[in-house]
Amino acid sequence: MIDLQQSRDEIDKVDKQIVDLFEYRMQLVKDVAEYKIQTGKKVFDKEREQEKLRVLKGMASNDYNSHGIQELFTQIISMSRKLQYGLISEGSFRHPFTELQSLPVDQNTKVVCFGVRGSYTEQAMEEYFGSNISRSYAPSFKKVMQAIKEGEADYGVLPIENTSTGGISDIYDLLVEFDNSIIGEHVVKIQHALLGLHGAEINDIRTIYSHPQGLMQCSKYIERHPLMKPVECTSTADSAKKVLEDKDMTQGAIASKQAAAYYGLQILEEAINHEDSNSTRFIIISRDKKYRKDANKISICFELPHESGTLYNMLSHFIYNNLNMTKIESRPLEGKVFEYRFFVDFEGNLNEAGVKNALFGIQEEAMSLKILGNYKSI
Amino acid sequence: MIDLQQSRDEIDKVDKQIVDLFEYRMQLVKDVAEYKIQTGKKVFDKEREQEKLRVLKGMASNDYNSHGIQELFTQIISMSRKLQYGLISEGSFRHPFTELQSLPVDQNTKVVCFGVRGSYTEQAMEEYFGSNISRSYAPSFKKVMQAIKEGEADYGVLPIENTSTGGISDIYDLLVEFDNSIIGEHVVKIQHALLGLHGAEINDIRTIYSHPQGLMQCSKYIERHPLMKPVECTSTADSAKKVLEDKDMTQGAIASKQAAAYYGLQILEEAINHEDSNSTRFIIISRDKKYRKDANKISICFELPHESGTLYNMLSHFIYNNLNMTKIESRPLEGKVFEYRFFVDFEGNLNEAGVKNALFGIQEEAMSLKILGNYKSI
Repeated sequence: MIDLQQSRDEIDKVDKQIVDLFEYRMQLVKDVAEYKIQTGKKVFDKEREQEKLRVLKGMASNDYNSHGIQELFTQIISMSRKLQYGLISEGSFRHPFTELQSLPVDQNTKVVCFGVRGSYTEQAMEEYFGSNISRSYAPSFKKVMQAIKEGEADYGVLPIENTSTGGISDIYDLLVEFDNSIIGEHVVKIQHALLGLHGAEINDIRTIYSHPQGLMQCSKYIERHPLMKPVECTSTADSAKKVLEDKDMTQGAIASKQAAAYYGLQILEEAINHEDSNSTRFIIISRDKKYRKDANKISICFELPHESGTLYNMLSHFIYNNLNMTKIESRPLEGKVFEYRFFVDFEGNLNEAGVKNALFGIQEEAMSLKILGNYKSI
Repeated sequence: MIDLQQSRDEIDKVDKQIVDLFEYRMQLVKDVAEYKIQTGKKVFDKEREQEKLRVLKGMASNDYNSHGIQELFTQIISMSRKLQYGLISEGSFRHPFTELQSLPVDQNTKVVCFGVRGSYTEQAMEEYFGSNISRSYAPSFKKVMQAIKEGEADYGVLPIENTSTGGISDIYDLLVEFDNSIIGEHVVKIQHALLGLHGAEINDIRTIYSHPQGLMQCSKYIERHPLMKPVECTSTADSAKKVLEDKDMTQGAIASKQAAAYYGLQILEEAINHEDSNSTRFIIISRDKKYRKDANKISICFELPHESGTLYNMLSHFIYNNLNMTKIESRPLEGKVFEYRFFVDFEGNLNEAGVKNALFGIQEEAMSLKILGNYKSI
């Protein structure tokens, strides 16, 4: 058996030498960076890097090490590039966003809300903007985007998570398509109530309408009331509307308290959902590329060729600048089989040097980069 | 100005030395691995690694290099670990899946389909299993999962992408909860038709029912027919059912040709959706942990603490084993603010050494790993 301590001591010696060589290499790279800045040459020279990697791999004595050397130098070269970006990015990274102190809102502010009156999205709108605004409603995510793009409204409110009206990627794709931006975020705690006509009683209810998710979130309540037959509707607000219009005392709707107020229904029972932690995240969008001074979350989207390691290399920009990712999602690009679009949320403000460095690096190396918004996470 | 060529020559010399040191280090690590195998010690010793990184970082002459050294040695140590995993994984990596030649299907095979008769999910089921099976229908993803778990059905069919009935993560979360597995995948090209009662004509249609996505995918057709008013339904199949039940010659439904056949409606116009590339991916689930010999795609789910770099380190297992990821998605874990669950799809078969190495590494380093299925990507 080998002497473990002796092997470990020897590894420590090797590591010390690698550290010294790494430090010396970074100094040399700095010299090259200065040359590149003075001559205006681009930092990222893919061909040169790949030739370099090919030569280094060739030095390895076996396949495993060859692979390892490729990994290692991909990283060393990428670090060198980041050092060079850091030296030039302060002056070079441009984005179209401007800072503002706070969102200007008054009774003339036009806000378009996804869905219909009495919905949870409306609740999010009122909690975020107050009720003293000029409001309108749009039936689809796309119509909300259009209204913002064409200046018919200043802000739009859309559900972005924990919703069955479409996933986060649909909205992110639309943000790219319409070139709108996220300017705010708001979370609503979903509290479903059982609504009925005035004069109706819980024990009379035989049919209970709601959105499939509403029915699911209250399934334990429905199980405890076996006489109630659940029936699906397009939205919770629509179920309230149906109960109002059908004028049938045996019909109930699972919807928000707002829906009760708006449709003139009676709240038969509050908080009938069994999942207490159930909440929906909404985003506020605008046509202007602005971010509040206190913004602390950034959403971006970038496209990469479908090659092993491309995402890995891209993530290193976050790691290297000490940025915390809070969400990542990939989706294939329609009609482009070998390319992917990624959506990433991370913590930060466009003012920060680390954020600028990371975005500069991604912009240089990805096929495209789009900043979807910088806003306050709540 | 510096001499660019001289700096580059010097960098080449440094790199050669790093290659030699790296190779020597890997040899030393192999010795340690043999010691660990003989004594049965665990490869991953987090505390020792972190202490080692702390010492190495302290050797750096500035903050930037300190960060770089941490990155570099995180990778070098991770490579060393992978070498050690490789030496022991063949015998050590255990998973509960067994190989089978093909899916046994006959008229007694019980298949549960999400949704109702005449849906696109039903179309997926028939295309995948043929029509000579014993079928049933379930109204929610959860009910499908339950039927499989409790042995009421052998296989389940669920839409997993390009659907507004819930996102991929909902289904993946349910797979984890019910411990069911993905055994197959099938893509259906969505072709919407305009359906009406027998005897109805396109020009008579005034109200057009469908699921919100159906209406959206045919919005250009609807715009060309301004007399048709779009109205949302819970599903495309439901819209066909409504037209049948209302017996109103001015009502139309946007749904599949299957729905026309099932509900006895007339196809007024075929292929009215403007997006030609529109298709939905469905998965086939089963309770048994099996994979077909020709399976070439693996879905997994793992949980990580919310620390900078944890995902990055996890992805290195794919890179290092030459595995291509085709999907990644993160979601926060309910009730656990600082932990994330990741869903990753990648190309491979559980038989392959590279797949085993990668999964062994992830299992050792993540808080949890679950293989959701190994199936044939189509």
